[in-house]
Amino acid sequence: MMVEIRTPISVDEAINRLMKYKFEGTSETVSFHVCDGRRLAEPIVATSHVPSFDKSPYDGFAFRSEDTAAAKEGKAITFEVVEHIGAGTVPEKHIQPFQATRIMTGAQIPEGADCVEMFEKCEEFTNDGRSFITVEHQMKSGQNIIATGSEVKEGSVLIEKGTFIDPGVKALLATFGYAEVKVAKKPVVGVLATGTELLDIDEPLEPGKIRNSNAYMICSQIERAGGDYQYYGALPDELDSSYDKMKSTLEEVDVLITTGGVSVGDFDLIPEIYEKLEAEVLFNKVAQRPGSVTTVAHAKGKLLFGLSGNPSACFVGFELYTRPILQHALMNPNIFAVRAKALLAEDFPKTNPFSRFVRSYVTLENGQLHVHLAGMDKSNVVSSLARTTSLMELPASETGVKQGDEVEVLLLHVNERQNTFR
Amino acid sequence: MMVEIRTPISVDEAINRLMKYKFEGTSETVSFHVCDGRRLAEPIVATSHVPSFDKSPYDGFAFRSEDTAAAKEGKAITFEVVEHIGAGTVPEKHIQPFQATRIMTGAQIPEGADCVEMFEKCEEFTNDGRSFITVEHQMKSGQNIIATGSEVKEGSVLIEKGTFIDPGVKALLATFGYAEVKVAKKPVVGVLATGTELLDIDEPLEPGKIRNSNAYMICSQIERAGGDYQYYGALPDELDSSYDKMKSTLEEVDVLITTGGVSVGDFDLIPEIYEKLEAEVLFNKVAQRPGSVTTVAHAKGKLLFGLSGNPSACFVGFELYTRPILQHALMNPNIFAVRAKALLAEDFPKTNPFSRFVRSYVTLENGQLHVHLAGMDKSNVVSSLARTTSLMELPASETGVKQGDEVEVLLLHVNERQNTFR
Repeated sequence: MMVEIRTPISVDEAINRLMKYKFEGTSETVSFHVCDGRRLAEPIVATSHVPSFDKSPYDGFAFRSEDTAAAKEGKAITFEVVEHIGAGTVPEKHIQPFQATRIMTGAQIPEGADCVEMFEKCEEFTNDGRSFITVEHQMKSGQNIIATGSEVKEGSVLIEKGTFIDPGVKALLATFGYAEVKVAKKPVVGVLATGTELLDIDEPLEPGKIRNSNAYMICSQIERAGGDYQYYGALPDELDSSYDKMKSTLEEVDVLITTGGVSVGDFDLIPEIYEKLEAEVLFNKVAQRPGSVTTVAHAKGKLLFGLSGNPSACFVGFELYTRPILQHALMNPNIFAVRAKALLAEDFPKTNPFSRFVRSYVTLENGQLHVHLAGMDKSNVVSSLARTTSLMELPASETGVKQGDEVEVLLLHVNERQNTFR
Repeated sequence: MMVEIRTPISVDEAINRLMKYKFEGTSETVSFHVCDGRRLAEPIVATSHVPSFDKSPYDGFAFRSEDTAAAKEGKAITFEVVEHIGAGTVPEKHIQPFQATRIMTGAQIPEGADCVEMFEKCEEFTNDGRSFITVEHQMKSGQNIIATGSEVKEGSVLIEKGTFIDPGVKALLATFGYAEVKVAKKPVVGVLATGTELLDIDEPLEPGKIRNSNAYMICSQIERAGGDYQYYGALPDELDSSYDKMKSTLEEVDVLITTGGVSVGDFDLIPEIYEKLEAEVLFNKVAQRPGSVTTVAHAKGKLLFGLSGNPSACFVGFELYTRPILQHALMNPNIFAVRAKALLAEDFPKTNPFSRFVRSYVTLENGQLHVHLAGMDKSNVVSSLARTTSLMELPASETGVKQGDEVEVLLLHVNERQNTFR
């Protein structure tokens, strides 16, 4: 048997080729009550002025400012309190000269009144069962009144399409009566594992076998990225049945991911299946570690991601290539992981002819981003993935990097389902 | 009517008083398949060695290293290939001197063999229908073999209790056969709105009324923090029925949040209801903006959070006080929002006698955290909340802060459901 020689392309070139096949997402309308964590498929437009009526910012008294023209310390102006309204109660009395309305925070200003003074700055008294206040200072027209539309004008665009729906966005949707919300539909991503060595998670270990962790990890990555996953089980190392399964699966999903079977091993069937599917292979060798065998193809109008069977390579392959495709379909304007500069917290002496994506996590110290290794960087060690919140990207180098060096990191836990940085 | 005078306490003192009443969460067992986004209620312990058998890191040939003792360039040693195994296939042949097994990445090393050499470094030939390889260099015992337990030893603690379950953690759970996972039970948080001015989100606006945005915003904050919310509707501004409703609600939840009604306005009933419930009021005035009226009480063994009816104050009150209580119940070891230093991106000239929590968002520029204002900082403006990913905490000051000043920020979108920073 001959070992196939593949020529590696750069990560940038791989992404360029892939981006030609990114596809537009569709939208669907969901109830306000279940829209958390989705992305807006249309901007939020103010359906009314905010506030929608002139209102009071304080608990106090509303009256005519012109009545205070002669007021000064020692010369009090007296107003009769003719009505008493709380928030949600509509004032009924039209305020006449030297009349006042007792008004609560958020309540509507009565007609005739053009200012509000706080309780603390008025003197109250009663006389013969009637209520009065006195004011010893002048007031200006509009003073302490939140005018209609002063916060938001009806029709203004408040939040852009593609925004992740978090509690603040929800408050805005509620304010403007968006009982239904148009959101980006979750792309459906099929997942197929390959390899006869795979046991399911509830099976006891057997000699020569390992439990299937990749497929479930990818399902979790899809969910975190905002997609819907559909797990179709593991393919046996047998060409015809694997081809049939992939072909039928492809019809049911927007994107198909396989794990394993993309290498040049004797039992790696994915390349042959792609050929049978008449898929256009965009790339099958990338100058990166881990995940150099990551293969992406296009068939029947859909993208096929052939991720490595190695857990770390599989993880990295998803984040680098599949995730941006899903973000685009989800209308996220920032489809790539946030890239930031960070100071390396410990030496990393390994050299590499390829770009390396090192499992790591970041900390903030005095406002400065630092990056730490998540564990042994053997591509076959699964445990460090559980501590990974970033990938440190090291360019090909013959020297390695040292503690204190500035390096680039891809932040995996931000801007996927949350807009932490923008 | 007299205006009640309340003496403000500091935010730190408020948190100190609150922390005496934090409560331990309970755990529940859920299927592996639905554990994403939960927190581990027990550590992940390796249930087996990784790998659980000696395995090959490469596609290549396994044989006895001692057979290569005399090998050197120009002096090839010949091995007969007696078996051919892929990952998941168990080798059956015990390797004898000058025999080799063709072996795929991840496959189990056959008995008798103690090293693996890659395809590329062996010469293959066939003779009379039998397969052979030659090797022209010496091999060491153990070379290119991933030894049993070399990555993880059975019984070792890999991930701590309280960890947020993300894709990497899920890969680990799958690897060790955690078909069921013990997770922290979500605390149940009741939400009650107060105020006759509230319309539901699907109702048209009326004079003097606004739509209820706070209650839904809080439900979303609870969900983001990992809790379960239960929305019980809006209370009318009527004491007896409101008391009855709060009393019965309190029996059904772990924590009860109300929005509004905590001020000293004439229709603010929460203080009276707390009294009727014989609640111990931990504080009802905090030296902070917004949210100085935030009130926390303890009754029937449960915490009651009386958040302001003002949207921003309500938002801030939840993040500062309710969220840490929920994080503790969820076994998150980091109960408080991540606090970081950041450079202020624009002037903020406002002064304040109280600590101020400014709605803001953060960016990373050359690895340095910057903080930007999310919008007008009027406490009654809801729209800026939709752009808020952090709260800038400014201490009481008579001078304001300027662009380029170093300030403290609380990061709201990290370490809640995701461990971005640690």
